[in-house]
Amino acid sequence: MKDLEDYHVSTMHYSRIMIAVDDDDFISSQRAFDYACTVAKIYNIPLAVAMILETGDLNIFQSLSPDVLTKQRAAIAKDLNTYCDKAREFGVLDIQPFLGEGVPSHEIVDKIIPSFRPDLLVIGSETKMGRRKTIGTHAAYMARYAPCSVIIVRSDAQISRMISYFEE
Amino acid sequence: MKDLEDYHVSTMHYSRIMIAVDDDDFISSQRAFDYACTVAKIYNIPLAVAMILETGDLNIFQSLSPDVLTKQRAAIAKDLNTYCDKAREFGVLDIQPFLGEGVPSHEIVDKIIPSFRPDLLVIGSETKMGRRKTIGTHAAYMARYAPCSVIIVRSDAQISRMISYFEE
Repeated sequence: MKDLEDYHVSTMHYSRIMIAVDDDDFISSQRAFDYACTVAKIYNIPLAVAMILETGDLNIFQSLSPDVLTKQRAAIAKDLNTYCDKAREFGVLDIQPFLGEGVPSHEIVDKIIPSFRPDLLVIGSETKMGRRKTIGTHAAYMARYAPCSVIIVRSDAQISRMISYFEE
Repeated sequence: MKDLEDYHVSTMHYSRIMIAVDDDDFISSQRAFDYACTVAKIYNIPLAVAMILETGDLNIFQSLSPDVLTKQRAAIAKDLNTYCDKAREFGVLDIQPFLGEGVPSHEIVDKIIPSFRPDLLVIGSETKMGRRKTIGTHAAYMARYAPCSVIIVRSDAQISRMISYFEE
């Protein structure tokens, strides 16, 4: 293969990172957040922290009630601020929060990525091995359609569950 | 959320990297290979280079002919050696080649990962936007079932094609 013979490895880094945090799944997001902050700090590059209020999670009465929505919005905005503070304490200098509302994967791919233009999207991965669901629906959608590289960060606990499931 | 308040970001690195090289798709693999070598060199960690002879690509006459199989095996072994040499020239110290035969994603997930036990799998991503196929079947399978973190590396050319496709 001639192309391969002529090829030389080049140093390759990412220059804009986005982390999609699942507000309902702190455990799954934690290792992904550690990874995103580590890369952003080491290379001193901008980090976007994106959180989505899943309006599909609300029942019809809740979604029609301005009070419920207002409370949910306040709660998620508070968590987003906390995540940004944690990144700042760790040493990330350029942090940009993004708050969306709707279907998380669609909001991230269709609205937040075109706005921030990351070259790497970092996502956690929920694992429900009982039903052989090893990657969240939102993670699978983002891995497929995000116009950037995507890293799916698995925690040690998730990996252990996957391995023991396959060995059964 | 109490867990979140108590959380502090920790530095997080990977310690064993595997790159799955698609021998039929040098362009798509190149940026992924650059990334894997960069991380392996900077952190001085072991790098596994895995290539699979896709026996499903052979027709029935080819697969029954020892000559054809022997030639294919020799060709892929040569390319695998070349990739390992490129990584070594770049400065990666610990390089382990893995040669498999069969369905690439299954060979990687079921045989090579359990043997090398990487904590990060690096894969390129073919993009066929015409049929809205934005991630290869093998990439999707590995992202779902690999018991480790997975990074899907997209090239600038792929990203441009994806963006122009969605904007149409």
